[in-house]
Amino acid sequence: MIEKVNMTMLTDFYEITMANGYFESGMKDEIAYFDMFFRVIPDKGGFAITAGLEQVIRYMQSLKFTEEDLEYLRAKDCFSEGFLDYLRNFHFECDVWAIPEGTPVFPYEPIVTVRGPVIQAQFLETMVLLLINHQSLIATKASRIVRAAKGRPVMEFGTRRAHGPSAAIYGARAAYIGGCSGTACTISDRDMGVTGLGTMAHSWVQMFPSEYEAFKAYASIYPDNCVLLVDTYNVLKSGIPTAIKVFQEMKPEKMGIRIDSGDVSYLTKKARAMLDAEGLQDCSIVISNSLDEYIIQDILLEGACIDSFGVGERMITAKSDPVFGGVYKLAALEKDGVIIPKMKISENIEKITNPGFKNLYRLFDKDTHHAIADVITLDGEAAPEGDAYEIFDPQAVWKRKKLNNFYAKNLRQQIFRHGELVYDMPSLEEIKEYCAGQIAGMWEEMRRFENPQTYYVDLSPKLWSLKNELLHDHNA
Amino acid sequence: MIEKVNMTMLTDFYEITMANGYFESGMKDEIAYFDMFFRVIPDKGGFAITAGLEQVIRYMQSLKFTEEDLEYLRAKDCFSEGFLDYLRNFHFECDVWAIPEGTPVFPYEPIVTVRGPVIQAQFLETMVLLLINHQSLIATKASRIVRAAKGRPVMEFGTRRAHGPSAAIYGARAAYIGGCSGTACTISDRDMGVTGLGTMAHSWVQMFPSEYEAFKAYASIYPDNCVLLVDTYNVLKSGIPTAIKVFQEMKPEKMGIRIDSGDVSYLTKKARAMLDAEGLQDCSIVISNSLDEYIIQDILLEGACIDSFGVGERMITAKSDPVFGGVYKLAALEKDGVIIPKMKISENIEKITNPGFKNLYRLFDKDTHHAIADVITLDGEAAPEGDAYEIFDPQAVWKRKKLNNFYAKNLRQQIFRHGELVYDMPSLEEIKEYCAGQIAGMWEEMRRFENPQTYYVDLSPKLWSLKNELLHDHNA
Repeated sequence: MIEKVNMTMLTDFYEITMANGYFESGMKDEIAYFDMFFRVIPDKGGFAITAGLEQVIRYMQSLKFTEEDLEYLRAKDCFSEGFLDYLRNFHFECDVWAIPEGTPVFPYEPIVTVRGPVIQAQFLETMVLLLINHQSLIATKASRIVRAAKGRPVMEFGTRRAHGPSAAIYGARAAYIGGCSGTACTISDRDMGVTGLGTMAHSWVQMFPSEYEAFKAYASIYPDNCVLLVDTYNVLKSGIPTAIKVFQEMKPEKMGIRIDSGDVSYLTKKARAMLDAEGLQDCSIVISNSLDEYIIQDILLEGACIDSFGVGERMITAKSDPVFGGVYKLAALEKDGVIIPKMKISENIEKITNPGFKNLYRLFDKDTHHAIADVITLDGEAAPEGDAYEIFDPQAVWKRKKLNNFYAKNLRQQIFRHGELVYDMPSLEEIKEYCAGQIAGMWEEMRRFENPQTYYVDLSPKLWSLKNELLHDHNA
Repeated sequence: MIEKVNMTMLTDFYEITMANGYFESGMKDEIAYFDMFFRVIPDKGGFAITAGLEQVIRYMQSLKFTEEDLEYLRAKDCFSEGFLDYLRNFHFECDVWAIPEGTPVFPYEPIVTVRGPVIQAQFLETMVLLLINHQSLIATKASRIVRAAKGRPVMEFGTRRAHGPSAAIYGARAAYIGGCSGTACTISDRDMGVTGLGTMAHSWVQMFPSEYEAFKAYASIYPDNCVLLVDTYNVLKSGIPTAIKVFQEMKPEKMGIRIDSGDVSYLTKKARAMLDAEGLQDCSIVISNSLDEYIIQDILLEGACIDSFGVGERMITAKSDPVFGGVYKLAALEKDGVIIPKMKISENIEKITNPGFKNLYRLFDKDTHHAIADVITLDGEAAPEGDAYEIFDPQAVWKRKKLNNFYAKNLRQQIFRHGELVYDMPSLEEIKEYCAGQIAGMWEEMRRFENPQTYYVDLSPKLWSLKNELLHDHNA
């Protein structure tokens, strides 16, 4: 599978230029901390879903510069032989912490933190971003679409419109984490256990002399699960009557019809009535035609009779907002065991980073187990606790709230310790189930698509003070 | 590289269900023709650029079902052993025709046609669409952005926001075909010859005690090409004065500054003046901050002083319109050497296909060598020629025009003959150069971004009549 390919050279060229620069400046072993985080939730939603960590882990485990890579770099005529030797003997030795996949996350939360020799920690930037941005984008979009479907299964059908092979393969994985029931993508089923399925295209129907013969042939070959595509010629005049005839003659164990064009709200209501009139209440109706969360919500409000959805291009490309803008920023240096916080200053307030090596806690109500707020602290601070724990909006510090009756959960786990994997990777099913549970623990008001309630993400007083001191020092 | 991975199982599950269905129905060797085409130009542009054919060819050449694949399929418990045996001995035997990469293309033109046993020709659908949709999307978007830059080099900088590894790798390739000068993506440079480059991130500057030390270290390590990122602290007060100081001290052979935030129109005008005042007219100014064709056009109109652009997320995801909606439709059957045209009927007029096995000609003005119109004909028809060749709008047949002084060029080439590659694949540089030449041959009025002139794509009278006969038969 694609993961067997050595992706070490899939990196922005500047990571290599900088690595050689650190090597040549005698700085390669200086210890740096980098945070991966994002600034804006796609589609202005209430939360994002993080995904892609498993692929990041496999990437870090397989980092290796081959002789072919070194030859290529040598030919660039700008890297030292000492540096190339370093790459030849590259041995991954970073510490990595991350929020597990399937977790609802918010702007500025450190999804991944890497600590290690700067020559290594910097180099990881491109792939950490590439893998987490992509899968988080799709998991977040899928979560929205699945919510719109109100419990009806949603299948990921977008392979043909994905941005290349790995967008299809990992997109199906991310969509499954976000709540989809399965995929049309065979390789994602085989290699990652995302349930795969699919039945027929219009061309199947066209290959036979008549729709009846096409349906009958299919039903005789697949009597266990017979879903017939009824819109090749005319849904109401031909497709559905023919399907009914074939179902009555062949009596498949499971039966369904799929409509892929036309006004699905109108057609499914008509279809349901036609099927029910013939006693085919068990026949399911599947819809697949440029769907997204907005269309699904609307047609269900119109009373469309739909049992499941196949969603293609608008999910696999996250069409309404196809960029997950994660960034990877220097947060601290470490000298002689002492952490020196670093902060990126910017004219744009939203581009200012949170300095230091941090922890992230989610506070839950002891009775309802609903999430109340997140708190970012500096490492070494105690976890939030007590009966009158005060949180405040870091952008508007007069907005304060005292919490009691809560418990705090550290949202992040250590993934690598000095280059050794110390994380027990959950299965895809576990991630999916965890994700559903975490979303269920979010307030209802955060789940709507338009103008959802903003979740509280607080900085501890200590982190807030540090940030303000650094801003002050910079201006002075 | 990624192409070494066996992608045979990267297919919609229904392709396998149908293949088994054709096998079990005794239809596997019936000869079918499929056309890959699209219906709408992304961003409502004047033309699209086709790309991805090389990857399609490599995919077709490497089709192979392994024992692992067969085990996986057997476990599904719905495929016959005879079918699995067929897959085990799969031998590709299709004919394939295609429009070469880098060609401006229009809705309904057959970009790829596959002729062969239906069990094979159908199976190719998913990957033909996946690969051509993706790269055509990015090449088309890149072509727009490059046009906006008015001759200034545009670098592809989007790896970290691409939809997974292959979106980055092949996206860089497609962007290069569309006119970009290079990429930040190292692996695309190494494996495909897309010029790669990159210098430093903000973290490089932050790793040093001061911006001066960071710049000075970089200039001493990379004296040949020293591009300094000047917006880590403050562009005008710190970044540019410090860069000037380092340039004057270190005298690098090539020098430049990069600005990645703030108002680039304002900042680059100020920067140019500051550099020129110090005699640094040779210092180039590079811009990279959420750019696309609209922003580039606007800031150049405002007089921004920019020598080259780095374009990231909005190009690599084609953010403004991230779906290239190519489809793969049955066009004909062949029985005893006779071609039987097939057409997909739909309530939606734009979903009706062009029937039959077709050719595609582009007519050029003999004097200017500008493209005048395209004509889709049935195979076997003579190429358009003569002094009063009449073309007409297939949607509005009263719109007619007589052409003279033109020559016709067959836009498609045969790629495979009975499964044998018969196409001499051009190099990436050749494709890029060909693309630039073809775009130059398009009327100026088709190149603007808003409401461009619609190019003429005509059907030959014979094809038009066939289509209307089939529609008439269907309604009767």
